[in-house]
Amino acid sequence: MSALETFRNTHPGRDYVITHTCPEFTAVCPKTGHPDFATLVISYVPDRVCVELKSLKLYLQSYRNRGIYYENVVNAILDDLVRAVRPRSMTVEGRFNVRGGIGSVVTASHAARRPPRGRK
Amino acid sequence: MSALETFRNTHPGRDYVITHTCPEFTAVCPKTGHPDFATLVISYVPDRVCVELKSLKLYLQSYRNRGIYYENVVNAILDDLVRAVRPRSMTVEGRFNVRGGIGSVVTASHAARRPPRGRK
Amino acid sequence: MSALETFRNTHPGRDYVITHTCPEFTAVCPKTGHPDFATLVISYVPDRVCVELKSLKLYLQSYRNRGIYYENVVNAILDDLVRAVRPRSMTVEGRFNVRGGIGSVVTASHAARRPPRGRK
Amino acid sequence: MSALETFRNTHPGRDYVITHTCPEFTAVCPKTGHPDFATLVISYVPDRVCVELKSLKLYLQSYRNRGIYYENVVNAILDDLVRAVRPRSMTVEGRFNVRGGIGSVVTASHAARRPPRGRK
Amino acid sequence: MSALETFRNTHPGRDYVITHTCPEFTAVCPKTGHPDFATLVISYVPDRVCVELKSLKLYLQSYRNRGIYYENVVNAILDDLVRAVRPRSMTVEGRFNVRGGIGSVVTASHAARRPPRGRK
Amino acid sequence: MSALETFRNTHPGRDYVITHTCPEFTAVCPKTGHPDFATLVISYVPDRVCVELKSLKLYLQSYRNRGIYYENVVNAILDDLVRAVRPRSMTVEGRFNVRGGIGSVVTASHAARRPPRGRK
Amino acid sequence: MSALETFRNTHPGRDYVITHTCPEFTAVCPKTGHPDFATLVISYVPDRVCVELKSLKLYLQSYRNRGIYYENVVNAILDDLVRAVRPRSMTVEGRFNVRGGIGSVVTASHAARRPPRGRK
Amino acid sequence: MSALETFRNTHPGRDYVITHTCPEFTAVCPKTGHPDFATLVISYVPDRVCVELKSLKLYLQSYRNRGIYYENVVNAILDDLVRAVRPRSMTVEGRFNVRGGIGSVVTASHAARRPPRGRK
Amino acid sequence: MSALETFRNTHPGRDYVITHTCPEFTAVCPKTGHPDFATLVISYVPDRVCVELKSLKLYLQSYRNRGIYYENVVNAILDDLVRAVRPRSMTVEGRFNVRGGIGSVVTASHAARRPPRGRK
Amino acid sequence: MSALETFRNTHPGRDYVITHTCPEFTAVCPKTGHPDFATLVISYVPDRVCVELKSLKLYLQSYRNRGIYYENVVNAILDDLVRAVRPRSMTVEGRFNVRGGIGSVVTASHAARRPPRGRK
Repeated sequence: MSALETFRNTHPGRDYVITHTCPEFTAVCPKTGHPDFATLVISYVPDRVCVELKSLKLYLQSYRNRGIYYENVVNAILDDLVRAVRPRSMTVEGRFNVRGGIGSVVTASHAARRPPRGRK
Repeated sequence: MSALETFRNTHPGRDYVITHTCPEFTAVCPKTGHPDFATLVISYVPDRVCVELKSLKLYLQSYRNRGIYYENVVNAILDDLVRAVRPRSMTVEGRFNVRGGIGSVVTASHAARRPPRGRK
Repeated sequence: MSALETFRNTHPGRDYVITHTCPEFTAVCPKTGHPDFATLVISYVPDRVCVELKSLKLYLQSYRNRGIYYENVVNAILDDLVRAVRPRSMTVEGRFNVRGGIGSVVTASHAARRPPRGRK
Repeated sequence: MSALETFRNTHPGRDYVITHTCPEFTAVCPKTGHPDFATLVISYVPDRVCVELKSLKLYLQSYRNRGIYYENVVNAILDDLVRAVRPRSMTVEGRFNVRGGIGSVVTASHAARRPPRGRK
Repeated sequence: MSALETFRNTHPGRDYVITHTCPEFTAVCPKTGHPDFATLVISYVPDRVCVELKSLKLYLQSYRNRGIYYENVVNAILDDLVRAVRPRSMTVEGRFNVRGGIGSVVTASHAARRPPRGRK
Repeated sequence: MSALETFRNTHPGRDYVITHTCPEFTAVCPKTGHPDFATLVISYVPDRVCVELKSLKLYLQSYRNRGIYYENVVNAILDDLVRAVRPRSMTVEGRFNVRGGIGSVVTASHAARRPPRGRK
Repeated sequence: MSALETFRNTHPGRDYVITHTCPEFTAVCPKTGHPDFATLVISYVPDRVCVELKSLKLYLQSYRNRGIYYENVVNAILDDLVRAVRPRSMTVEGRFNVRGGIGSVVTASHAARRPPRGRK
Repeated sequence: MSALETFRNTHPGRDYVITHTCPEFTAVCPKTGHPDFATLVISYVPDRVCVELKSLKLYLQSYRNRGIYYENVVNAILDDLVRAVRPRSMTVEGRFNVRGGIGSVVTASHAARRPPRGRK
Repeated sequence: MSALETFRNTHPGRDYVITHTCPEFTAVCPKTGHPDFATLVISYVPDRVCVELKSLKLYLQSYRNRGIYYENVVNAILDDLVRAVRPRSMTVEGRFNVRGGIGSVVTASHAARRPPRGRK
Repeated sequence: MSALETFRNTHPGRDYVITHTCPEFTAVCPKTGHPDFATLVISYVPDRVCVELKSLKLYLQSYRNRGIYYENVVNAILDDLVRAVRPRSMTVEGRFNVRGGIGSVVTASHAARRPPRGRK
């Protein structure tokens, strides 16, 4: 598993939103062994640090040959990113390509205990 | 009627949303005997279990030669899925193709008695 | 004026939404005598009955050679449908084609005195 | 039937193309009595005269309550326009809305005996 | 300045929305003398009267050769329409074409002192 | 197998094109037993007769529960239509929905021995 | 009428194509006095000179308050540009906004006597 | 750094929104030295002054050869504009082009201490 | 390398076209080791056999962890498919995702020595 | 000026097409000093070598602060690429953003003296 790196948030006095859209996510279905494809959308309000973009790319690439279900992809990425970035809030959405005539989207969110300052 | 199967929700501590979009739904109009076509969108917050995708596909295919009205398609699928999955909340939407120059959408929702934890 | 017919709502215990989109509405401008064209969108929460789709088509076709203004088209159809269906709530929207370089949309809503059960 | 009027082509020395797109065409199906809707596209190289736009609008409106099949709509409009305008060439295309789940397009062309000058 | 005309609202007992979209607005930049182009969207809840469509067209055309800034276009049209129509509420939006690589939208709203009845 | 009916081409002196687009075609995969879905596009130059639209709808519906491969769907429909309509030329295109992450289009054409008159 | 200016074509040894798209063209209908709006597309193979972009903008703006028919707009602009630029070939297309429910496109071309070198 | 200029807001009695969309923003990545590209969307409710459009263009162009990270682009532009315009509220959004298969959006907002009057 | 399988073409007397679109192709860049993504479009006129769809899927999946350049992806797949299917003609197109701000398409074709019968 | 590098074409026996689309091209207008933006599309049939993608990116970036007209951008890039790659044929198209309400496209092509083998 590739490590997620961070850099210091230089505007911690303001709640603002960073969204990364990754249309090239791929993993492997643990049941059939066939590849799955998804667009991942990661959106968060940083607190002390932001996620470094290149380490995010390598982290997402490290799923390429892992067998993992849709629900676990989204929840595991959310867990890893929350642990690394400690955001004020974060949402991870996986939009998975059609399989058997059915497309699937899984969306999970995390909010820090103390609500962010002054956010609408 | 094909049985809906489930698997254990491995992240029950978090409210998250799963959406399945099925553009290949077809049934038969009980009045005219002609086929109807729809895109079905099923969206839910799982509690203890999630619906297994292949059994969902077979379940939806089992409507192929049944005579059933639009309103009943959506409400019956919602009833069956709620019974099988016991979700914290669920919405089923059927977007039916144009008939007689008129397109129709039917949308029905279910919420568990106790509201889900911490959901916005 | 063609009569609107209804059929019994088999799921009255649940508030759900039915939307009919009719892109082939046409009437006549009472001032110029020229035809007007619109897409009508009718959306409602049924109470005891639903509107029967073929009678809705014929009802809308009965406007074909009537002279009537935009605002009256939308309000009259809403009045007629509310009288026939007694919905928990209903919205009628008419999206009229460009005339004199200006497109127009008229949207009117009706809510029953007692608010519908458990609707968000 | 409303008369088609014309005005003098002030640039007869050059072959050029005029295209009129009419998304508001409607007639009546002679079998079912139900209205049909189409977008008509009329394209021609004028010779001595061009068709006057307002008379074209009224001519197309005169089909509003006539019972006529798709194929005849397109061929009759082509015949009438060729008779009125004597173009160097002309194409009429009718794109009819979905009926019974099937959309239809009918396209017919006419070329004057002597080929137009210098056209590619 | 062309006069805005009105006609009686025949359904004053109901709050409903009328939206006019005018993609052919043009005025002149007072600084450069070059023409500006915009799509204007006017949306309101009528009280006693509605704005007559042809007078609205002529009113908007009267800006064609006036030098006026974006912000004033939107606020002046809102002021004039509020004075003529006395709506329960109204919004005017001007979406101006790109100038110097930058597109601009200005949106202004007016609400009557007493809030409209029963509007959501 | 539902019979294809025809009606007389009233403009045989002119080569013109009729195109029917049928987005609601469905058959069954003979290998897996799962339903396949396609949009069929049928385009032809009629000679003495045209295909009657309602019989075409019923003919296409008769594939609903037949096991048949993509290539055979398109070639069989082309063969049946050529036999029934004897067109001057005809093309049938089947655009099949994604299966296993792969979408497929099959296109077959037929031309009468003697080339049609005056066609471009 | 604003003058069209040119600058020297620095690559006359090669046939290449320059296309200018002007979505902000407006003139006045000589019959009704109402403004017309169009997108103009000008495409040419330069010979010795190219048209200077700012003078083209001012030239097109000079139509703003002229009364002129669609066909004349396109043919007059083509004549003026051919006179100013002497291109190897040129096409002018005017795509006029909907009037009376009908949109219109006029397209005229010019080719120099001697065909351009080596063009496909 | 090019100076931001302002002009007096002539309608300070009304809260209204001005949005500028700038699809031609470019800066340089401080790590790789390669250019970054973004669409910037600046939206605000003016108080006493509005930002002058040409000075905004020049201000944004002054980033062309500066090395600066995404987060700083958006927060610095928001800081500079708030200082120059003192808006009632303002949002700056930077939509950055794909790098390493990942697109990024950064959105930051500012609200004046005293909430704007009568805004919804 | 997964083997391509074929099945007998049951309509060899007719030239027809089969097109497979595979939006889920992925390989690895031999220089950087990073994954590449592409949509592959394979189009051919079958002679004696057609390519079996599931073996095509597995064949394309076998590139998942191979280091190979864009040009070689397209040419190697064309070579392999021509060897397996011996088509009358075939085209393979690879549409590769943006890298370094540049998207790339590679298109290669093969035609059998003897031209196919009666193809337009 | 950054040097264009090449690599050996490993399939010289086949004419195939490579297309690179670069939506992030920017240069400076020599008259106004303001930046210009364009999408460049480069399409060629390689002979002995292909252009290396990273050197192409750097070559295009080297225009960032050069003052150069649209026509020269396209012709100069075509000249440089032809000199470096000696393609069987090549086309360069520059699609420049709107300036003064006018968008511009310049397209230039080059063909080697001896026509490529067997190309359609």
